[in-house]
Formats: sequence, C-alpha cells, structure tokens
Amino acid sequence: MQANLPHLQSIFTADCVIFGFEEGELKVLLIERNEYPFKGWWGLPGFFVEHNETIDDAVERILYEHTGLRDIYMEQLYTFGDLQRHPQGRVITVAYYAMLRLEGLTSLKPGTDYVRQAVWHPLNKLPDLAFDHHNIIEKSISKIRKKISYSPIAFELLPEKFTLTQLQQLYEAIWDKKLDKRNFRKKMLNYNILKELDEKQRGVAFRAAKFYRFDKRKYAKVFGNELNFS
Amino acid sequence: MQANLPHLQSIFTADCVIFGFEEGELKVLLIERNEYPFKGWWGLPGFFVEHNETIDDAVERILYEHTGLRDIYMEQLYTFGDLQRHPQGRVITVAYYAMLRLEGLTSLKPGTDYVRQAVWHPLNKLPDLAFDHHNIIEKSISKIRKKISYSPIAFELLPEKFTLTQLQQLYEAIWDKKLDKRNFRKKMLNYNILKELDEKQRGVAFRAAKFYRFDKRKYAKVFGNELNFS
Repeated sequence: MQANLPHLQSIFTADCVIFGFEEGELKVLLIERNEYPFKGWWGLPGFFVEHNETIDDAVERILYEHTGLRDIYMEQLYTFGDLQRHPQGRVITVAYYAMLRLEGLTSLKPGTDYVRQAVWHPLNKLPDLAFDHHNIIEKSISKIRKKISYSPIAFELLPEKFTLTQLQQLYEAIWDKKLDKRNFRKKMLNYNILKELDEKQRGVAFRAAKFYRFDKRKYAKVFGNELNFS
Repeated sequence: MQANLPHLQSIFTADCVIFGFEEGELKVLLIERNEYPFKGWWGLPGFFVEHNETIDDAVERILYEHTGLRDIYMEQLYTFGDLQRHPQGRVITVAYYAMLRLEGLTSLKPGTDYVRQAVWHPLNKLPDLAFDHHNIIEKSISKIRKKISYSPIAFELLPEKFTLTQLQQLYEAIWDKKLDKRNFRKKMLNYNILKELDEKQRGVAFRAAKFYRFDKRKYAKVFGNELNFS
C-alpha cells in the first residue's frame, strides 16, 4: 500500500520521557545528540519506529540503545504531529513516559553512535532542547501532576524507605510549589497510608528523621475508585 | 526526508470513538464502510491523516466527513501500531474519543462515498468490526471507566436535567454491572453534588421521578485533587 500513497506517508518516531527523583529534585533523562538535525543539542531519547516492530518494542529498543536502560515499564503518553515540529518534513512522534527510582541508575551507557551521552537533568534547569521536546516534557509533567492525585505513583519515584521530608520534596517538585510542612504532614498521616518504620536516618548527628514506607494496599484504596458502588 | 527512508515510512490514520447515552444504554457511533478493505463492514469513523494537517485537524475533518458531526471536543486516547492490525501493510492509527449528549444527534449524514451510513450502536450489541476496532473501543471504555471515578464526565453524557434512575443507568452502563439502587442513591446524594429541581418527569402516570442537575462546582471539588495541599 505504501507505494501508491506517497502523499500519505509519514515518518513515525517514538520519544521517551524518563523521570527520576534524587536529592529533592525531579529529573528527566536527556541525551546529547550526535546526528542531524540538532547535532550537539540535548533532547529526549527517541528514534524511528521500524516497519517490523510494534511501537512498544520500538520504545524499548530505542531507550536501550540510547541510554543502556532496559526492562523499564513505560506508558504511552501522547502522539505529537504538529506540522512544524521537525525541520526536515512530516514526522509524527509518540511519546512514552516512565518514573524511576534513581538509585544506581546514574551511570548510563549509550550503545549507538547517534548519542554522545545520556544524563539526568533537573527539570527546572533544562537546556534548550531539540524539536518540540520541551512541549513533550511539559505534557508529561501535566500528566504526572494529575496522576499523582488519584494514583499511587509516588511509589515509583521514592526509595522503598523514605522520610517525610523526601515525600514532601517529591510533591513539591511535581507540583512546582512549596507546601506547608505541618499541613502536609498532618494530611499525609491522616490518610493512614504510611507505615512508620523502627529505623531512622543514619549519618545524621541531630534529630535523625524517621523512615516510612507506603502501605500499598491502603494507598491504592485511598486513591482508588471514589465512586465504587460495588 | 521521506524519499530517502522508504523502510521507515508508515501510513498514519486517525479513528474516532464517539460515545453517547440514550434510553439507559451506552452507545458508540459506527460507520458502514463502502471501501476496501472491509467493504460493507462496520467500523469506527477513521481515515488517513494528510501531510498538511495536524492530527487534531485531521480528526475533526474525518469525523465531519464520515458522520456530519462537527465542533465536537475530542481527546486523544492512544496510538495503536500492532503489526497485523491492517491487512494491507503497516498502518499506525491514533484514536480520539468523545462523549456526547445524544438528544438531536441521531440523524447523521455522511459526506463521503467511503461511508454508507453512520449509526449509533449499543455497546453491548456490537457487530463484527473492521481492523482492530474492537480493541480500540475496549481501550476507550477502560479509559472512561477510570475517568468517571475522578473526573466529572457524567455531565457530558447526561441531559442537563436527569433522574436518579438515568444517572444510575449511566454508571451501570459504563461499569457494565448492576448497582444496588438504595446504596447508589445514598452514596450519590451524600456527595452533595446533585441539585434537586422543582420539576418532575412528565407523561408518567404514577410516581413521577424528580429531576436533578449537577452542581458543577461541587462535583469538580469532590472529584478534584484528593491530595491538594495548597
């Protein structure tokens, strides 16, 4: 079919928006491009979807080639097809996103000449980006901002054990605003979704903070179906 | 760029999943196809995205050409790219969905020879469908099933004034299960999101039901950001 319909043929790519949370900051994984267009620029890991692979497979392959990360659970976010988004013609891209615990994931090894390096960038200090990648990141943030209000995604970004300060920093980073400490703690503890552990922060001389972990069952219940009449 | 990369070129289409609610039934808008492949089959309104139009524009155009509907607010749902989804080659499709009040929208006029007729079909009595359109509809239902638990989408499907029976039928249709009448009414009235009207059903000899409408402000609040610490 392709041969008969040249005016309908598009190039189709996939881009990956990978979020991490570290040292109180929300970060996004960027690659330094080593190919035209935008050679030398930073951008999202992303490349062509081949004819013989599903979109999901393409996303997995591209992320691995560009960053060395694999077996990451990614969700489809949105497909972008603005006419001016690519300088060389009509290129439609589908963006996928994922949220990761950053521990142990900071040293990444691209496996393709198209990419010079893959580096985590704080979301509030992004460089100029190739294509419409700023848009794509903005849309992803909106998504997780909404999602964190009805779905237990904080799990995915925090370590298994965390302090209330870390939890607050995560919400502050995602919502991009400061929250009142007392109010935050009170509300969060009232939800009854956190389990206090016997363990405290180490290497802290004074007022070591308690560790908590999520009670996943309760968390899912609190953020579950509000209107479940079953 | 297209000319140099034939192995990367895809056909890109858009499909529309339009839901309506009528006589206690959730319905979806289907067209009878008048073109190959799947000539004579039912399927979703959908067609090629042209090079010179954005995806949003294409969706609006296609829906209008296939059904006569226009100015419908549609949201992007998901992009489908399974290798076997189209019998003639690699075709990637992006699905959009919308929810409509059905009153006055039952007589639709396709404006293209590709379509014989556009008809609302009850969701639980769908015919065989072209391509992977059953999948696409299934994914759309999952989406609104989740969405109705945290977002005021019931607005979009019900008439301005409705009875509690209609409201319950809508939830039953979306969740595909029977709900206990007393329990449903109690919970729903407890949310304090319904405004009781002075008006009652007409043309009913006995026990005419009261009409309600949503208090949109309160509804948005109840289903709004559970974790809003601001």
